[in-house]
Amino acid sequence: MKPITKKHKIKKIPSPALSRLCKIYSLAEELEDKGEISISSKDIGKRLGVGSHNIRKDVSYIGETGTSGSGYDIKKLKAHIEEVLGLKKERNACIIGLGSLGVVIMNYQKDLLPSLIIVAGFDSNVNKLETIKISIPVYPTYEITEVVKRENIELAVITEPDRNIEKISERLMQGGIKGIINFTPVILNPGPGSVYVRNIDIVSEFRYLSALFTLSEKE
Amino acid sequence: MKPITKKHKIKKIPSPALSRLCKIYSLAEELEDKGEISISSKDIGKRLGVGSHNIRKDVSYIGETGTSGSGYDIKKLKAHIEEVLGLKKERNACIIGLGSLGVVIMNYQKDLLPSLIIVAGFDSNVNKLETIKISIPVYPTYEITEVVKRENIELAVITEPDRNIEKISERLMQGGIKGIINFTPVILNPGPGSVYVRNIDIVSEFRYLSALFTLSEKE
Repeated sequence: MKPITKKHKIKKIPSPALSRLCKIYSLAEELEDKGEISISSKDIGKRLGVGSHNIRKDVSYIGETGTSGSGYDIKKLKAHIEEVLGLKKERNACIIGLGSLGVVIMNYQKDLLPSLIIVAGFDSNVNKLETIKISIPVYPTYEITEVVKRENIELAVITEPDRNIEKISERLMQGGIKGIINFTPVILNPGPGSVYVRNIDIVSEFRYLSALFTLSEKE
Repeated sequence: MKPITKKHKIKKIPSPALSRLCKIYSLAEELEDKGEISISSKDIGKRLGVGSHNIRKDVSYIGETGTSGSGYDIKKLKAHIEEVLGLKKERNACIIGLGSLGVVIMNYQKDLLPSLIIVAGFDSNVNKLETIKISIPVYPTYEITEVVKRENIELAVITEPDRNIEKISERLMQGGIKGIINFTPVILNPGPGSVYVRNIDIVSEFRYLSALFTLSEKE
């Protein structure tokens, strides 16, 4: 593997490739944990459900070419993805909705993504704000814009359905948020270019499965 | 809207359409909650980020055509999707991995998906099984096949990374599981036809965002 130099220019990475690079990183972590040393693009592709040429192309975006025959050195591949994509860079985040899902994501993230620093929590229920016991400062949702600006928050995680989710997303954007992960069933769609939004609708996933089962029973 | 009759044959629904129908259902729920009466295919498409012709086609799979001009009656559309896709049918499920995410998914699901009945929990850590306080029976992971068969469990939710996730998925399939929702970063890929698997990798989503921010800073 050729080491990357400061002069090596990272080409613009298309979003499906970027998404796969993050999954290759997770896979490398898993394999390293199991004590494995190297992996071929073919094996990576098999695990991710895509062709090996895709994997080689994905990895080439970050300036790597692999070694023909023996494949990628897992440790180096992981370190390299981590460096180029800045995966260990600390970034401020906030949680919107302090119900059970919000609190668990906060705890879960501490173990798995220590680079994400949750610096604020928001809830529209003022009673909840007064009684909740968590280790971060909490605010009413009408203060979102101000707090996001002041605390330099880049990422918001929305965990609870709210009638005013569009207003919440507006406030986040006015505060300069860069990305939103939306765990509610309400689809956020603020238009291209402004902010990155990922809708992860767990409830719809469960419903989709239930529907699949129903339809297969009818056949 | 023409009411569906028993004789109306539901055509085979392609999976993207089925997935959208579940999202249309969530949207209908949200709008009904807000007190709205009807919605056009154009507005639904806008919210879901697809064209209105897709929406009309999706809805036509369940035997509906809408009313030209005034759009769909929200209450009826919701009830109809619910009936055809069996979204209220009770189904047995299990949780694998009794860490914080496992427990919260269990509680979260109770509020949002009362039709999913979690009847068993599994963990490979026997000490955890002895000390955990939850309201469902818990078992060691080596009993998965037996319990899934006995309890007629259709859906498994895997919440914790495990070195032996492939073995766990094998045991689930030997027990006759129909679907797996996998929240761990390890990608499960058991091949087509055998069982439906949905990988929801929350950690990779956060990493993807972090990577996007890094790359945009380099530009």
